[in-house]
Amino acid sequence: LPKLEAYDKSLPYSYALGMYPCQTLLDSRPGIASRLLLDETAARGEGIDGLRSRCAELGIRHEAAARVLRRESKKHNCYAALVFDKYVDTLCAEASHVVLHQLSDAGNMGTILRACLGFGVKDIAIIRPAADLFEPHLIRASMGAAFAMRVAMYDAFEEYRAAYPNHALYPFMLEGATPLSEAALSGVKPYALVFGNEGRGLPPDFARLGQAVVIPHSGAIDSLNVAVAVGIGVYVFTQGRSD
Amino acid sequence: LPKLEAYDKSLPYSYALGMYPCQTLLDSRPGIASRLLLDETAARGEGIDGLRSRCAELGIRHEAAARVLRRESKKHNCYAALVFDKYVDTLCAEASHVVLHQLSDAGNMGTILRACLGFGVKDIAIIRPAADLFEPHLIRASMGAAFAMRVAMYDAFEEYRAAYPNHALYPFMLEGATPLSEAALSGVKPYALVFGNEGRGLPPDFARLGQAVVIPHSGAIDSLNVAVAVGIGVYVFTQGRSD
Repeated sequence: LPKLEAYDKSLPYSYALGMYPCQTLLDSRPGIASRLLLDETAARGEGIDGLRSRCAELGIRHEAAARVLRRESKKHNCYAALVFDKYVDTLCAEASHVVLHQLSDAGNMGTILRACLGFGVKDIAIIRPAADLFEPHLIRASMGAAFAMRVAMYDAFEEYRAAYPNHALYPFMLEGATPLSEAALSGVKPYALVFGNEGRGLPPDFARLGQAVVIPHSGAIDSLNVAVAVGIGVYVFTQGRSD
Repeated sequence: LPKLEAYDKSLPYSYALGMYPCQTLLDSRPGIASRLLLDETAARGEGIDGLRSRCAELGIRHEAAARVLRRESKKHNCYAALVFDKYVDTLCAEASHVVLHQLSDAGNMGTILRACLGFGVKDIAIIRPAADLFEPHLIRASMGAAFAMRVAMYDAFEEYRAAYPNHALYPFMLEGATPLSEAALSGVKPYALVFGNEGRGLPPDFARLGQAVVIPHSGAIDSLNVAVAVGIGVYVFTQGRSD
């Protein structure tokens, strides 16, 4: 078996660290899992045993790899991981999307994927430069949600737009003209909710691309954390409306 | 001047790292700032100069301390910080509260404070064991919001409740009986929105303390990230209602 390298963006594989991400991976994309890594010194609980037997059924071999688990998780309480092959997704043209424009923080991005999946938005466009979708920390912050969704990467917003020209665009901006509750009530489906970078937000010209939405908040803060903003935006668009 | 120690919970002071947290500190609690730390090798921009002159007016001395800035921020792009004395707050009894029960992640807690302040909930109860409010990473994740709010710590939920017995309690729980939108519509003021630990949520008996609220989401995810859940809960309670 080839030696498992420290994760790097250029590798063709990555690591799903921890029980929950492993389970989601096996539920959603069993074909991409290649090796089950276990910390054999850890107490064997039901979770680990279940994972082992599922992998055995799928023909995925398991191996003792405590050192790799510690190296990739940077923690001492990660007892299982799956090595998986990276993949490329295409978005569903009929479904609503969330577009993440140049988000740089892997933790934010994982948290966002988890919230979007929870609210039923399963198609995510990532506009580069952005955090690496397959970075183990992002996959872990998503609790494996990344595997249960379609996530596609684009080098520019125009490239995404050319592929999906008919979605009603709702760029979320501090200077947006329409409050979220109002935008959601009149929201046209399928829609694309567009969110910008942690520090910079969206470039001003995005206001002209669709109906610019603001989540009203007091001037006591500069802005909301982007994962919180996406969570609120997707919640209100999916649940705060009557249809 | 005494040597500045590496931050530790037991120290009587902490560090507000970065321009925005420093500004919020000076706006909200100028009396607790004792020393302005600057990276004198950094290009002096308007922000740094403004901070220096404000500190000079307030009688806060500045000093070159690039090494302390790097040590405390663990980054190379932190050019200014204020040393501040820790303080104790009391909550406003007439205002609505957010109660954070045993949250352990400093980043989540900072993100939550920022969102609460943005939506006008300025009184936060923290039930221990919990992340240390004054940890520099928490203050930074809050973008200094912590300084512009009242945050009080309690050793048990009962202690908080004894101090504020009249707030209508809304514990947020996966097994909550009332959907958020419904709970918010009938919400009684002042209210206390109660959120549990990242991994465990709230203990089951919290359901009996008030009207248990659920943020409906699909079974494809285990739970929402707690900062996202608080953001949605506070948004809907403060803005999704007509009064």
